[in-house]
Amino acid sequence: MNYGKSIRLHTAFADTADRVRRALKDQGFGVLTEVDVRAAMREKLGEDMEDYVILGACNPPLAHRALQADRRIGLLPCNVVIRADGDQAIVEALDPQVMAGVTGRDELSPVAAEAAARPEGALAWLRTHAGSTGQEE
Amino acid sequence: MNYGKSIRLHTAFADTADRVRRALKDQGFGVLTEVDVRAAMREKLGEDMEDYVILGACNPPLAHRALQADRRIGLLPCNVVIRADGDQAIVEALDPQVMAGVTGRDELSPVAAEAAARPEGALAWLRTHAGSTGQEE
Repeated sequence: MNYGKSIRLHTAFADTADRVRRALKDQGFGVLTEVDVRAAMREKLGEDMEDYVILGACNPPLAHRALQADRRIGLLPCNVVIRADGDQAIVEALDPQVMAGVTGRDELSPVAAEAAARPEGALAWLRTHAGSTGQEE
Repeated sequence: MNYGKSIRLHTAFADTADRVRRALKDQGFGVLTEVDVRAAMREKLGEDMEDYVILGACNPPLAHRALQADRRIGLLPCNVVIRADGDQAIVEALDPQVMAGVTGRDELSPVAAEAAARPEGALAWLRTHAGSTGQEE
């Protein structure tokens, strides 16, 4: 199942991560958590891998509405992955509509539709601000 | 769809949160992130709600295997929700097997089965260490 939306940017990892934070902010999402997966794998397992971070994004009004519909919704956050691929970077966002389907709660559908439009907006922002290089994966 | 496992404990929120952290550690999960949803809703929206935290748990060897199978798996973390319900608390863990189903990648199945056993183990640990009060929701 295609559970996320991806774009590839022809910008390096660190620059891309900065752009993603700006794009999320532009769409009303704060970044509540950040996991440096590369550092965790190196520290815990001694394994090396490409740069890879997970941002936990939150749009407070949407989160509030989702909690009213399903109190367990905190299990399914708005995660954004940024990972290096050579000298390019791949940005992926979880599809809230797939997640709403998992819950089986119809009352989440309008919240999910709005939530889905915003990462879409953030990816569109990235495409615009990265010039013509942003490509859908 | 039942996308999480829940138990209700007859212990107060703060005590329960401590128990959950110990149970996760006992099962090889570190807590990489913690979101205080109540504080965020109060700060951002002025809305009050019950105590509610989201722990982002990670078992590094399982995470490493999951990344080998699906590089986007960082979109789907191992989240645990702890929330107050009166003077009791509810603990919920995402079901990794539901999440593996979302990805549609068969090669994630054995990782998900192992990952699912561990939150089960953590919930069993909680039931044992909370005496006879732990109940499945």
